[in-house]
Amino acid sequence: MPGTDTTLIALDWGSTQLRAYRLGDAGAVQELRTSGDGASRISGGATGFEDALRRLAGDWLDSGAPVLGCGMVGSAHGWREAPYVDCPLALDALHQHLVPVVMTGGGTLHLVPGLRDRGAEDGLPDVLRGEETQLAGLLAAQPAASSAGLTVVLPGTHSKWVRLRAGRVDGFATHLTGELFALLREQSVLGRLMVAGAAFDGAGFDRGVAAARQSRDLTRLLFSVRSLGLLGELAPEALESYLSGLLIGAELAAALCTIVPEAPIALVGEPTLGELYRRALALAGREARLHTAPLAADGLWHIARGAGWV
Amino acid sequence: MPGTDTTLIALDWGSTQLRAYRLGDAGAVQELRTSGDGASRISGGATGFEDALRRLAGDWLDSGAPVLGCGMVGSAHGWREAPYVDCPLALDALHQHLVPVVMTGGGTLHLVPGLRDRGAEDGLPDVLRGEETQLAGLLAAQPAASSAGLTVVLPGTHSKWVRLRAGRVDGFATHLTGELFALLREQSVLGRLMVAGAAFDGAGFDRGVAAARQSRDLTRLLFSVRSLGLLGELAPEALESYLSGLLIGAELAAALCTIVPEAPIALVGEPTLGELYRRALALAGREARLHTAPLAADGLWHIARGAGWV
Repeated sequence: MPGTDTTLIALDWGSTQLRAYRLGDAGAVQELRTSGDGASRISGGATGFEDALRRLAGDWLDSGAPVLGCGMVGSAHGWREAPYVDCPLALDALHQHLVPVVMTGGGTLHLVPGLRDRGAEDGLPDVLRGEETQLAGLLAAQPAASSAGLTVVLPGTHSKWVRLRAGRVDGFATHLTGELFALLREQSVLGRLMVAGAAFDGAGFDRGVAAARQSRDLTRLLFSVRSLGLLGELAPEALESYLSGLLIGAELAAALCTIVPEAPIALVGEPTLGELYRRALALAGREARLHTAPLAADGLWHIARGAGWV
Repeated sequence: MPGTDTTLIALDWGSTQLRAYRLGDAGAVQELRTSGDGASRISGGATGFEDALRRLAGDWLDSGAPVLGCGMVGSAHGWREAPYVDCPLALDALHQHLVPVVMTGGGTLHLVPGLRDRGAEDGLPDVLRGEETQLAGLLAAQPAASSAGLTVVLPGTHSKWVRLRAGRVDGFATHLTGELFALLREQSVLGRLMVAGAAFDGAGFDRGVAAARQSRDLTRLLFSVRSLGLLGELAPEALESYLSGLLIGAELAAALCTIVPEAPIALVGEPTLGELYRRALALAGREARLHTAPLAADGLWHIARGAGWV
């Protein structure tokens, strides 16, 4: 029966997808519903967002349970902007920065803000939105994990490297790696020599990682995908994995310079990409633990608990 | 009257365009004709190429003058492959490696080969095709220019850095800079915050060059286009120039490490892009002379003279 045992309605609302969790007494997922109504696909402003939410989970809203959302729904082009909060920030303090949105149809949704790193170290500011909730979920399960310092890597379209210490986000850096890979494979001259849908080629990937560790000249390294292909030094089936190795290797070579050599590394993401990062980190002599379970619902539950709602 | 005073028919035949020059007694251009029949746009193999050439310059061929072509027409997917010749190679020896193509309709075309750098220094081989002829043209005008060492930079979709000494190509490196810029501006999340068609923003460009000189972490630098835009630290009108500065700056920062600090630098290319490179080089404390005149016809004339045809 919808509405029964509904303690929190938790929304992981990204650019391209809306994932709604109905959570029970102890934060256990009672039900998950997803739709393609991502924040970047909704028109009509606040009305469009509320309509999308009611279409997917209107019956849950009738329960009167609190509603908490994270992700691009809180961006400047989302339902309402939840302004970035500056680092360093204790993840346990996120609930103090929630932005309320009173819904036309009744009830109030709260939005989790993103984080800003002002870039004091190198003059380059940075932002994230959504990952703060995943981090809260990661630490909720193992509160002591970051006590002596922990680097969390969240690979993806825009890969994040987050420095945690004692439950606090000290700073972070974003790399355009995933988006670059997709663009270069699908739209550039480099993709023309590749075999579409080729299986992962471990030797090609490792060669890319090694090349990127040896040279920091990424614009040149990228052209080597073409040269090695044209000259027959890498098989067409290996070129995509080589490109992937170059890009992930370049990200790692740069990012590893900025963190404490001994600090443990946690990888958070889907298994296939997470495994590539784990492999590349191993080539650099670094072990990393891979967390593949979704963390947004856990994080939202943890934030709601901080707010005293559950 | 076509055919009169035709000493050499010189073809600059790239991927997207065919430029045919009718050269007179002293190599002076009598006539230039262009078509969109680039090597990547021709189907039907050799017949397709010969048809395209006859459509554009069939009346010139009747003169019986020698025909010499360079560029992608000599690639594996061109009219006929003119295999890469290894560096180091004296530009004066290019004529020894011409590949003849007997035309069905009478006459013989010769193709200039591209060059290969086997990558002995860093294990990354590299190739160029077409630029060898521009280099021959550059040195034909000033044979002593490379006597003590000269770096020639040919910016573009695939930017080339060529190390010359005493008329010889010692080696070269290609950077994917121009293609990356176009992809990121037109297809990536970075383009979304930009103002299409904004005027060049000098301060934004210089900031990008400076950032790329300070950090070699290109995947991260690229995301700063978004962060600076989202946070309002760079105006939407400046973001495109900042991205351009980041990419050209990254290419320069890497490439300048590989050449002799005192070696003179020549820039070869169209004025707008050439000027951006000149500006970025100046920020790195390096002067460069910019050559904007087309060099292919001069180079083909010089190669034909080496062969004893003119």
